[in-house]
Amino acid sequence: MKKPFRFLNILITLFLAISISSTPGSAQRRPSGIVSPEVLSDNSVIFRIYAPKAEDVRVVGTWNRKFAPDIMSKKDTLWEVKVGPIPSDMYEYDIVVDGLPMLDPYNKAVTRDGGYIQSRLMVPGGLGDLIDAKQVPHGDLKAVWYDSPTVGPEQRRMFIYTPPGYDQNPKKKYPVMYLLHGAGGDEEVWVNRGRANYIIDNLIAAGKAKPMIVVITNGDVNNTATVLDREAFATAKTTPGGVGAMAAGLFERSLVNDVMPYVEKNYRTINDADHRALTGFSMGGYHTQNISNANPSLFKYIGVMSMGLFSTFRPDGYDKEKHVAQLKALQKNNPKVYWIGMGTDDFLYRTGVELRKLYDEVGFKYIYRENIGNHDWNSWRMYLTEFAPLCFK
Amino acid sequence: MKKPFRFLNILITLFLAISISSTPGSAQRRPSGIVSPEVLSDNSVIFRIYAPKAEDVRVVGTWNRKFAPDIMSKKDTLWEVKVGPIPSDMYEYDIVVDGLPMLDPYNKAVTRDGGYIQSRLMVPGGLGDLIDAKQVPHGDLKAVWYDSPTVGPEQRRMFIYTPPGYDQNPKKKYPVMYLLHGAGGDEEVWVNRGRANYIIDNLIAAGKAKPMIVVITNGDVNNTATVLDREAFATAKTTPGGVGAMAAGLFERSLVNDVMPYVEKNYRTINDADHRALTGFSMGGYHTQNISNANPSLFKYIGVMSMGLFSTFRPDGYDKEKHVAQLKALQKNNPKVYWIGMGTDDFLYRTGVELRKLYDEVGFKYIYRENIGNHDWNSWRMYLTEFAPLCFK
Repeated sequence: MKKPFRFLNILITLFLAISISSTPGSAQRRPSGIVSPEVLSDNSVIFRIYAPKAEDVRVVGTWNRKFAPDIMSKKDTLWEVKVGPIPSDMYEYDIVVDGLPMLDPYNKAVTRDGGYIQSRLMVPGGLGDLIDAKQVPHGDLKAVWYDSPTVGPEQRRMFIYTPPGYDQNPKKKYPVMYLLHGAGGDEEVWVNRGRANYIIDNLIAAGKAKPMIVVITNGDVNNTATVLDREAFATAKTTPGGVGAMAAGLFERSLVNDVMPYVEKNYRTINDADHRALTGFSMGGYHTQNISNANPSLFKYIGVMSMGLFSTFRPDGYDKEKHVAQLKALQKNNPKVYWIGMGTDDFLYRTGVELRKLYDEVGFKYIYRENIGNHDWNSWRMYLTEFAPLCFK
Repeated sequence: MKKPFRFLNILITLFLAISISSTPGSAQRRPSGIVSPEVLSDNSVIFRIYAPKAEDVRVVGTWNRKFAPDIMSKKDTLWEVKVGPIPSDMYEYDIVVDGLPMLDPYNKAVTRDGGYIQSRLMVPGGLGDLIDAKQVPHGDLKAVWYDSPTVGPEQRRMFIYTPPGYDQNPKKKYPVMYLLHGAGGDEEVWVNRGRANYIIDNLIAAGKAKPMIVVITNGDVNNTATVLDREAFATAKTTPGGVGAMAAGLFERSLVNDVMPYVEKNYRTINDADHRALTGFSMGGYHTQNISNANPSLFKYIGVMSMGLFSTFRPDGYDKEKHVAQLKALQKNNPKVYWIGMGTDDFLYRTGVELRKLYDEVGFKYIYRENIGNHDWNSWRMYLTEFAPLCFK
């Protein structure tokens, strides 16, 4: 190493040291030498935290389907627990110190879905590799603002993923997947926590999915954009009724009337049902049903994740006759894939049973995928890895 | 409100309730009715946290230049403190519970710079409004991967901001600002914490800045991308020497040899020095000096934020004669704006004194802006609001 570099090293180290010590509380935040999480070669994981005054410290992560905590033990001032081996996947976790959940202070990888801001754990060797940002060709991801007169006068924000090679093949047209999120979320969650762009990158690189454009919308009509990208000083709209507005039909109409025209005007899309997919989880699965039921000729690839039939909850608000007529119209348009994914432990599991019962009764064809899992991102990311390869084939 | 909406409300509320209670530890995370931070009409701010077992709770935020904590008081199980009034701006803060810094559990707005993941506070009425995502035309922001043979075989990630109207005016060409970050950061920090795209949106909307393309790079040659967007299972490169590599000249060369050609090929740029700006803070201010010194004819708008002369720290590694020759060559190319911003409390303040001393000695012209402030984002965001309007005029 040349001499000037050594001095630069010292200087940069000094920068970091000073900025660390001058950032409030960060001396405790990252004491040197502590590694957490540490993924061992057998995919068991050690979590550690420096918390000398704490009396009870535990890790709660999505690797435990029943949300049982992993209790940490104190060694001097350091708490530690070894968990697993854990199946290869991406997980969310909190460290709970005397009842207060916090981020793992030694882990820079933090993801968010709505108000849930948690540390991320990646476990390699299987599904985790399909979710990781690998050294494969990457698509580009653009945050755009579009007019959405159906929802209101303000522009709204969404992400558009274009596959590798999109800019290099200026005459090529692509199929489009519309990817929807759940209640409490926004346009960022399929990127930040859902890893949709990297999942699609990896599937395309492996030859398992066709190169496609992916449109990642914000289904929360109360807010124009995700929390950091909307006005901090504006309050959310509450018409026609707070969180219920998310499910009042506005978003579904705006997807067809505002989002699709924007995408088809500004991107090189193939504009027929054979080259359009629609999928979403939870509230996004409800939106997916509503949109495909109301527009039977628009999408030939439909994926309903972790959502079943609403009638389970609203016996008097549900119009079965109308629903059956919609399903028959949809069937007539011959969708190529109608896919339903549901976890065994999902709190909406029973709505899925009701939905399948109705579909069977009507003779409406679908593929059913049941996994041992929960109403969470471990299911939704996996569903995307399974649904995307079925599209546009 | 129509009846079906009521049932949907109930269902969606149920979703949220269940997903909240089934997310580990989140009952404590967001007990209903607690608001934090609460910004009052006089811009004082109340912070609150539910921490029944804690013995010492404090808030530490960047509104306090000396990093003195604001000590919270316990009322039953709730801790609370009123701070301010605070000048309008964006701030970062931690809540420190018995010595452990954590996010404010009731605040969804969280930003990151490297390993510093902190809660965000927005205070309106002045500079804060210029940093907020207002209802003005927004530019688009695209995350792209580009070849960077100067650094290594892997593609690297950066953000490209295109101003409002870019897609609607397909023949118009634009000036370009290259925007660099500090040590420990990555391409995301000027977006996530720096709010560069919204600052430029607001300046353009107010007629204070010219519509411009902004290129936001990753100056950390050890990593191809920010933490969530690079391989989780790959380890950082450490050639030619860990964190020192960030300052070993590789990034500076790659900006000129890899980044600029990519941008000028794929975007409608005006390719002359009159329409190129270069600026960065801390390590990015060092990179800015190196790049403009080594390439005197490329940029006519140069902004050095929170960084002075390195010779202060490395008397034997510094070649003053070469530096002076570079400054003379740069002066000969007649930069229109050479801007230096420095905070009075910056730990690098003295390096700025040395730099200005040298520039004065050589007769090298510059604008000097000194603010009462620190080596932190409150300075850097403000510098951008002041430097960008000087460009391309």
